[in-house]
Amino acid sequence: MRAVVMHAPGDVRVEDRPDPRIVDPTDAVVRLAATCICGSDLWPYRGAEPVDHQPMGHEFVGFVEQVGSEVTSVKPGDFVVGSFVLSDNTCEICRSGYQSHCVHRIFTGSEVGTQAQRARIPMADGSLVATPGTPDEDVMASLLAASDVLGTGWFAALAAEVGPGKTVSVVGDGAVGLMGVLAARQLGAERVIAMSRHVDRQALAREFGATDIVEERGDEGVARIKELTDGLGAHSVIEAVGTQESMMQAIRATRAGGHVGYVGVAHDVNLPGAELFFSGVHLHGGPAPVREYLPHLIDLIWRREINPGKVFDLRLPLEDAAEGYRAMDERRAIKVLLEV
Amino acid sequence: MRAVVMHAPGDVRVEDRPDPRIVDPTDAVVRLAATCICGSDLWPYRGAEPVDHQPMGHEFVGFVEQVGSEVTSVKPGDFVVGSFVLSDNTCEICRSGYQSHCVHRIFTGSEVGTQAQRARIPMADGSLVATPGTPDEDVMASLLAASDVLGTGWFAALAAEVGPGKTVSVVGDGAVGLMGVLAARQLGAERVIAMSRHVDRQALAREFGATDIVEERGDEGVARIKELTDGLGAHSVIEAVGTQESMMQAIRATRAGGHVGYVGVAHDVNLPGAELFFSGVHLHGGPAPVREYLPHLIDLIWRREINPGKVFDLRLPLEDAAEGYRAMDERRAIKVLLEV
Repeated sequence: MRAVVMHAPGDVRVEDRPDPRIVDPTDAVVRLAATCICGSDLWPYRGAEPVDHQPMGHEFVGFVEQVGSEVTSVKPGDFVVGSFVLSDNTCEICRSGYQSHCVHRIFTGSEVGTQAQRARIPMADGSLVATPGTPDEDVMASLLAASDVLGTGWFAALAAEVGPGKTVSVVGDGAVGLMGVLAARQLGAERVIAMSRHVDRQALAREFGATDIVEERGDEGVARIKELTDGLGAHSVIEAVGTQESMMQAIRATRAGGHVGYVGVAHDVNLPGAELFFSGVHLHGGPAPVREYLPHLIDLIWRREINPGKVFDLRLPLEDAAEGYRAMDERRAIKVLLEV
Repeated sequence: MRAVVMHAPGDVRVEDRPDPRIVDPTDAVVRLAATCICGSDLWPYRGAEPVDHQPMGHEFVGFVEQVGSEVTSVKPGDFVVGSFVLSDNTCEICRSGYQSHCVHRIFTGSEVGTQAQRARIPMADGSLVATPGTPDEDVMASLLAASDVLGTGWFAALAAEVGPGKTVSVVGDGAVGLMGVLAARQLGAERVIAMSRHVDRQALAREFGATDIVEERGDEGVARIKELTDGLGAHSVIEAVGTQESMMQAIRATRAGGHVGYVGVAHDVNLPGAELFFSGVHLHGGPAPVREYLPHLIDLIWRREINPGKVFDLRLPLEDAAEGYRAMDERRAIKVLLEV
């Protein structure tokens, strides 16, 4: 089969790799219908994380082709959505809603690689969620979005305790930030302030439910959020970047007693304890337990209540993955869908 | 009047200072019945925070002597409990339960100083809570404890989302940590693990409701907590020290999706972003909104349901404050009550 392999930073190739097969009785083999490139794939692409001949990809939708003898919840022919962490969905941590920290978790990106024609999915029962039927083409991209960016934005909004009557600020206008905007609106936020200086992303943020746009960043961005919130700061802030600046911007834009939901993978971030202490904010985040939200998100998409697939602004065949990486690296594309 | 002044690190004196009087119409003057020395007073005492001729003290109970013309909720003769932050209790932040971040807040320790015979209390209506009557001697120390350490331990337990069925670990066996043990038990925790290597403090922790004692610290302490919790970590961890080691111990002893409530004033703490991200814990803390909890805590004490006053293991007259500081600095005393 054909699959995307990152040989080294900046060096992405589509190559022949062995077809996956059932190894454990809890496995499934999925023939991918669509996959995509994640903002987090840019960290190794840019040399910010080590990478050496790594099969890439951790977001996926597709058809189950084979299942192991112990798999009971999906069967060949089912259309399924997975996510970037595979989980047993039965351990105490999973049952508490934190499947991304499952005691048996497997990171799809490290051990599977779904920028490919097929993938072996361990713990299929705990990881895959079947759609009600074969999806129409108009919801395919949205289901793929649920696999990571929507699920992650949803978790960020929940971690930030978004809810009715609240003012929410979103730091980061990448795909996850935009999904955070959508989630905040779905979860009933009164006001959603997207922080973005890119006109096209501002437009998409508004389409997803942003009520205000703030172009300033850093201290100036914080000052603008304070101005918009009677000097107090937002009730909820979603952080979807992962840098020192974005984390501090998020913390400082949050009122005392408010909540920061952070999902940007932290790189070279150190939080000053005394400032955090006196801020009085709640902090929660990390890898999103997408599996927890998939049934609900699939339902919203199936009923055409949300259209997160709009976040994909470039579609390429799998063979052109290298161009997809370049487009995202150069910020020519928000998020690239790879057609398999 | 007589009052405690810290001239410099390690140099505590009891001196004559002017009697306080009503300045603003929202003030009250309180004749103190008892006050005490806080673990946080040791930071400047040890030179870890700057100090220069600072009137000391931020915990207090006493009788209202005079009130300004606009004060309506307390009157001369009332016995009142205050706390280390004075607040209007009407602003949006106060109404959300975060009086310690009131938009008009005044830190009692910086601007009032209650290790004294009398104190002027600004924003009396928002800051003071009257007891149902003049307290009997047996609850005096407990009411004083409510003023800071109990209120702070209570907040830590709430911030750590302590509740029925949960396992709680408490890092720090000072007065606040011990109050955290008491709060955790009151809030219904199933198991309360006190981390302490001092036999006398272990005994007090058990009396306040600890079900287990762990003597190990740092990585070994974390490993013991994991052993006691099926390898997962505690649901809730209370951090009541404020050092890098104690914060990391608290975060690492918490399961993914669990909650760290931290109330040790952070000194030279830097939280590594990537570790925090992948821990999946919730983090909340800071200066406790004691005012929010005072009515409930006073009620529990008045009904003799809790006896937090036991945390005071040394009582001295105000004139002997310097000896009180020495005893706490040398850890000969957990917490010192100063009789006024």
